[in-house]
Amino acid sequence: MALFVMKFGGSSVGDVERMQRVAKRIVEKKLDGHQCVVVVSAMGDTTDDLIDKAKLLNSSPPAREMDMLLTTGEQISVSLLSMAVHQLGHEAVSYTGWQAGFLTDQTHSKARIVDIDPARVKKSLDNGQIVIVAGFQGASDTGEITTLGRGGSDTTAVALAAAIEADVCEIYTDVDGIYSTDPRIVRCARKLNEISYDEMLELAHLGAAVLHPRAVEYAKHNKVCLVVRSSFNHNEGTTVKEEAVMEQGVVVSGIAYDKNVAKISIMGVPDEPGVLATVFGKLADASIDVDIIVQSGVQDGTADFSFTTALDDRERALQVIESFRQQVPYHHVSSEVGLIKISIVGAGMVSHPGVAAKMFDVISKLGISIKMVSTSEIKVSCVISNHQLTDVVGALHTAYGLDTVEDVFVGGPQDRR
Amino acid sequence: MALFVMKFGGSSVGDVERMQRVAKRIVEKKLDGHQCVVVVSAMGDTTDDLIDKAKLLNSSPPAREMDMLLTTGEQISVSLLSMAVHQLGHEAVSYTGWQAGFLTDQTHSKARIVDIDPARVKKSLDNGQIVIVAGFQGASDTGEITTLGRGGSDTTAVALAAAIEADVCEIYTDVDGIYSTDPRIVRCARKLNEISYDEMLELAHLGAAVLHPRAVEYAKHNKVCLVVRSSFNHNEGTTVKEEAVMEQGVVVSGIAYDKNVAKISIMGVPDEPGVLATVFGKLADASIDVDIIVQSGVQDGTADFSFTTALDDRERALQVIESFRQQVPYHHVSSEVGLIKISIVGAGMVSHPGVAAKMFDVISKLGISIKMVSTSEIKVSCVISNHQLTDVVGALHTAYGLDTVEDVFVGGPQDRR
Repeated sequence: MALFVMKFGGSSVGDVERMQRVAKRIVEKKLDGHQCVVVVSAMGDTTDDLIDKAKLLNSSPPAREMDMLLTTGEQISVSLLSMAVHQLGHEAVSYTGWQAGFLTDQTHSKARIVDIDPARVKKSLDNGQIVIVAGFQGASDTGEITTLGRGGSDTTAVALAAAIEADVCEIYTDVDGIYSTDPRIVRCARKLNEISYDEMLELAHLGAAVLHPRAVEYAKHNKVCLVVRSSFNHNEGTTVKEEAVMEQGVVVSGIAYDKNVAKISIMGVPDEPGVLATVFGKLADASIDVDIIVQSGVQDGTADFSFTTALDDRERALQVIESFRQQVPYHHVSSEVGLIKISIVGAGMVSHPGVAAKMFDVISKLGISIKMVSTSEIKVSCVISNHQLTDVVGALHTAYGLDTVEDVFVGGPQDRR
Repeated sequence: MALFVMKFGGSSVGDVERMQRVAKRIVEKKLDGHQCVVVVSAMGDTTDDLIDKAKLLNSSPPAREMDMLLTTGEQISVSLLSMAVHQLGHEAVSYTGWQAGFLTDQTHSKARIVDIDPARVKKSLDNGQIVIVAGFQGASDTGEITTLGRGGSDTTAVALAAAIEADVCEIYTDVDGIYSTDPRIVRCARKLNEISYDEMLELAHLGAAVLHPRAVEYAKHNKVCLVVRSSFNHNEGTTVKEEAVMEQGVVVSGIAYDKNVAKISIMGVPDEPGVLATVFGKLADASIDVDIIVQSGVQDGTADFSFTTALDDRERALQVIESFRQQVPYHHVSSEVGLIKISIVGAGMVSHPGVAAKMFDVISKLGISIKMVSTSEIKVSCVISNHQLTDVVGALHTAYGLDTVEDVFVGGPQDRR
């Protein structure tokens, strides 16, 4: 007997049939002799519908009231799912976030979990019940209802798994697991059997949307064994854990890309101590996330440097830079779009020299110039023009020995060759 | 400055426009210098829609899970109404039942209020906020979410008014107040300015659907001053309180009728002690509500008696009676439908002899025979054939001096003569 946390997203419980399928899936696990705690998101479009209603009544609704409103979405799905499980002849009990013991801080719409008291969940498990918990929500110590913000239900599942010391936290989704790269652009992408927390974190930050980085961080910190798998089939999925077993000769686990990239360059900035701190301090004050930063050579007492931001932040970043021209003089500023950040990720990289060199070589052989480079212990990212995305990802995938002979594409039959 | 509880039903907040109108109404009260606690039901058809969804997943959903599901309806309306008030530039805060301090027993779907801790509501009032509380719900001491069952939101409003010692508990509805009789059948019905709790209780039990009897009982017990008024206009409404001021010469306040009546007669029952107790004990065991009971003269050691039930219960009552024939032998049983129970209600009745006699006289002058009679200190009910409903109610209304010259009919313009 093992203790499982099973998390299902909104599309997995989007309508009555899907809800029934999820109920069946849970009961199967129970009949296999396991204990089950289930975490569910709001059904399909429920959250968006509620937001639309709110906007009709208030152009900028208070965050506290939005939390009161939106948490009903998950409360509806947990109670309905519990009914569906009962219909199959098994005992189930649904809990809101506060009932399941999720204590958060007071930051409405993006609260952080302060503590979890799993006594009630554990008691229900001891009574042989299937426990169904509303994702994405909790309550503060003053009894205010809060939501956890983006990636909320994944975080609920992982945090609960840590609190009840579950053996496995399964994240059910619409893909089979974590892939070596996006199967929509590289057909011979391979499903990874295992991946380390750090690799998963890099991939999540780099745009692989399957798991929210916050949930992965929580899992890493609490050593929760995560499994990402499909809610539509019984394939094995991908296990995310501390030390993933590497296949022989594979140093790169995955290739990620991010289209949401703008590059901004400031030329002729005085080469003095504190200048960079001032520039990026001002950008941070304006809540502009800066990713890669590259400083080029110093000449005549001035330096040039470039950085990347999200496309949406480009305009605002340029305004901020204009605003401090009196304080930090510079020659001129320019920005560039139509870019892509392509990254290779692998825990084995650190002990294998030449991994980055191979990446540069592959890209240059395609006649593409690299505009920016950034490295970490387990990742190399290059910013390039977005014109040859498919070619570059495909070539890197082959160069690092990731191609599989199987056709693993997970789309419907009409999508297969 | 006075402290008001204002209760709005589901149809008053049925869509965005109505929600905005209610928000405006609340803000008007606040601008008049008063403190406001608002109790709201679920929007329009929300509850029915949720029940439909539940039925698709489970033919007999567990009561606990239904409470989890249905309480989201009020949580949605309180948060949206709070947003609408904020939009008008006033501070509001919404609370679920448990947040507002409603402690109930564990009887899901028809929980009873055990205690109310109004600390949080009071604190918000002290902060100058408008407090908006979800009707119909609470939580047990083990943190289970419960609903109060029928008449729930009225009861929430009255109980909260008692707990915070509100000056007035206003029940907003789609009629102008309590009428001397149903204005749909008697055009010269008059709106009552005041009515006593006991009279209101009788009228509520007798089918005047404006207030739920449970809420009236709660108000009477806690001496909460109730005002029933329209959410569509600013007319004064009807005040329900301990001692209503009677108009000169008016002993009857209102005339009610109930079409949901079946009469069952059991003939030739042994005239022995304990027989009646057995018969009505068996009916009570089968949860059949019995209203009027009449025993006729004893002859040859046997007696005949009749009683009324709801139309829906007639079939089952006959089965129960058949089932105890071995234990309590009787000659034969018969039942009758096509009836109506017509009642006159008035606190002044007890000190004015001849009130009942006048009723019998009016009815007999219309050539109608009275099938059953039942009296209490403030009420006389007669069961008659339903053929001349309008005539009888009209004649009684005139006989007791209740007719008004105004045309007070509250329907739309097309309904007026």
